[in-house]
Amino acid sequence: MASDIQASMLEEIEKELKRQVARLDQPRIANFHEMLTYHMGWTGEGSGPLVTGKRLRPLLTLLALSSCSELNEEGNGVVNWLHAISAAASIELIHNFSLVHDDIQDNSSLRRGRQTVWAKWGAPMAINVGDALFVIANQAIGDLAEHYPSEIVVRATRILSDCCLELTKGQFLDMSYEGRTDIGIEEYWPMIAGKTSALLSACTHIGALLGYAKGEKLEAFRLFGYHLGLAFQVQDDILGIWGDELVTGKSAASDLVEGKNSLPVLFALEKNGPFANRWRQGRIAPEEVNEAAALLEKEGGREYAEKVSEAETKKALGFLEQANPQGEAGRIILEISNRLLKREQ
Amino acid sequence: MASDIQASMLEEIEKELKRQVARLDQPRIANFHEMLTYHMGWTGEGSGPLVTGKRLRPLLTLLALSSCSELNEEGNGVVNWLHAISAAASIELIHNFSLVHDDIQDNSSLRRGRQTVWAKWGAPMAINVGDALFVIANQAIGDLAEHYPSEIVVRATRILSDCCLELTKGQFLDMSYEGRTDIGIEEYWPMIAGKTSALLSACTHIGALLGYAKGEKLEAFRLFGYHLGLAFQVQDDILGIWGDELVTGKSAASDLVEGKNSLPVLFALEKNGPFANRWRQGRIAPEEVNEAAALLEKEGGREYAEKVSEAETKKALGFLEQANPQGEAGRIILEISNRLLKREQ
Repeated sequence: MASDIQASMLEEIEKELKRQVARLDQPRIANFHEMLTYHMGWTGEGSGPLVTGKRLRPLLTLLALSSCSELNEEGNGVVNWLHAISAAASIELIHNFSLVHDDIQDNSSLRRGRQTVWAKWGAPMAINVGDALFVIANQAIGDLAEHYPSEIVVRATRILSDCCLELTKGQFLDMSYEGRTDIGIEEYWPMIAGKTSALLSACTHIGALLGYAKGEKLEAFRLFGYHLGLAFQVQDDILGIWGDELVTGKSAASDLVEGKNSLPVLFALEKNGPFANRWRQGRIAPEEVNEAAALLEKEGGREYAEKVSEAETKKALGFLEQANPQGEAGRIILEISNRLLKREQ
Repeated sequence: MASDIQASMLEEIEKELKRQVARLDQPRIANFHEMLTYHMGWTGEGSGPLVTGKRLRPLLTLLALSSCSELNEEGNGVVNWLHAISAAASIELIHNFSLVHDDIQDNSSLRRGRQTVWAKWGAPMAINVGDALFVIANQAIGDLAEHYPSEIVVRATRILSDCCLELTKGQFLDMSYEGRTDIGIEEYWPMIAGKTSALLSACTHIGALLGYAKGEKLEAFRLFGYHLGLAFQVQDDILGIWGDELVTGKSAASDLVEGKNSLPVLFALEKNGPFANRWRQGRIAPEEVNEAAALLEKEGGREYAEKVSEAETKKALGFLEQANPQGEAGRIILEISNRLLKREQ
């Protein structure tokens, strides 16, 4: 039964995303529409379920909603999650808008093994593609008005907009830290709060709001998403250095080669030992990456990050418990959280 | 008295814009905030009233609102325009978001005689600055909820989002026409409808909505803004070729040198005479610009564009008459329209 609800949600999310993006399916702008459907993984070379991403964010939104209310005889919550499908799509579109702009900003020409939008159509077009995804996300959240009272639509839209400002702040910090070796752990948190936690927090917050959660329950859902995001990002930092290449699909320790200001590195920089000395001398070459990763582990960078990740995981699960998610949807949220936080990929 | 209302509106618009942008006035991200205040014309070299732009769009929004309702004894409409100030700011922020991204897309390093954001801080930062202006615009329109019922906030937000999709469509067409010499007049209208008319239409539409206009009156305001935008853009095309350099502040005929697909040029391309032949042979050099402009005028490009501009102006003023704007605000709208449409700059 579990996979039934999850599978229908994922199916409806994909349908709704296509319906939203089809706002650009019009004469004269067929190429524009194609740029968006290509990015979403639906068209062009290499398209298919493997490259669309996991649609984790919209799924979490709908699951939060469904887990808020008592169950009816069909085993669903009283609130029909289909009525909130445009909000779920909106969050996924925000995520994808940020990916398209990120790829330009990071000069990344590949995403999930495919050419990025800017690599294929140039940066000017890609900027506009990202903008359009953002616009459609705004239109999608507005579609909530078909099924929700205007007060709720205004609140959901506000949560989403506030989250987007956090995204731009996180993105600014990330870019401004680039190439700097004087960043401390203190600077790490506001960056990942913006880049990762804000959107996951918006998922569980908006989902619970649309499930008519109130007061402490609503706040617990919001904080669950927030700490889930922090734990997830720290975990990602660990895997980016010591992850199994076969499992993560990225070359192991690639974060060290890319000079990324990840938590283990920032820990070592504050310790100011041999790893910090090496780091400050310039980029680590692929052939010295194993040695550098071993040094970083020896200096306690891995252990520190694992402790931090565990602490955030504990907080996230504590808030989830407070949120007290119900039924099948609640069970799946817990399952997904555990998989995300102890994940090997 | 006229200038009194207009001056207070402009003063409050500027204050509200600063208040909205101050969402980024926070520790750690002072440089980010500065990028936005620089673009808005408030800080950095060359800042001051001369470079902020005329704030025409938010002014038109507030004037439309004020002109909708009967006048009270202070000579103001019954609806307090200050209650809609965040919506006016929102539209100006959308305009500025599009300018920041346009400058990257067009590779323009100067705007109003100052370095553009990307020229000063690089394209990756400038993409994020544009995104942040867009986000703050969304937050600003949401602030309407402080003074308006949620139903109206949802409707205003929807109008703004729909307008933004038109902007991205217009931008796509503009970029996709670049360097092509097979564009016809038929292709011109959807491009300028998106790039210029959509936002002016949103101003008068949202303004009237917030002035509680309904039915045909509301629709007349929307169409007034739309045709005002078309007439304005065609007028701009004429000035971009035959404008007085001293008045426009741009080098005369610069649109010909830049190869812009303006209406007079598209007319001549369809006529397929000597100008079209020359145009298709490649960019016009600054030293042959006077000759080319004279040829284009001889072939009827100027006369055609002037006729089109007059026809659109007539439509705009017809819808304005239908909208029947009241009082001092109504008088100023008419004055501004006349100035815009017969403008020499």
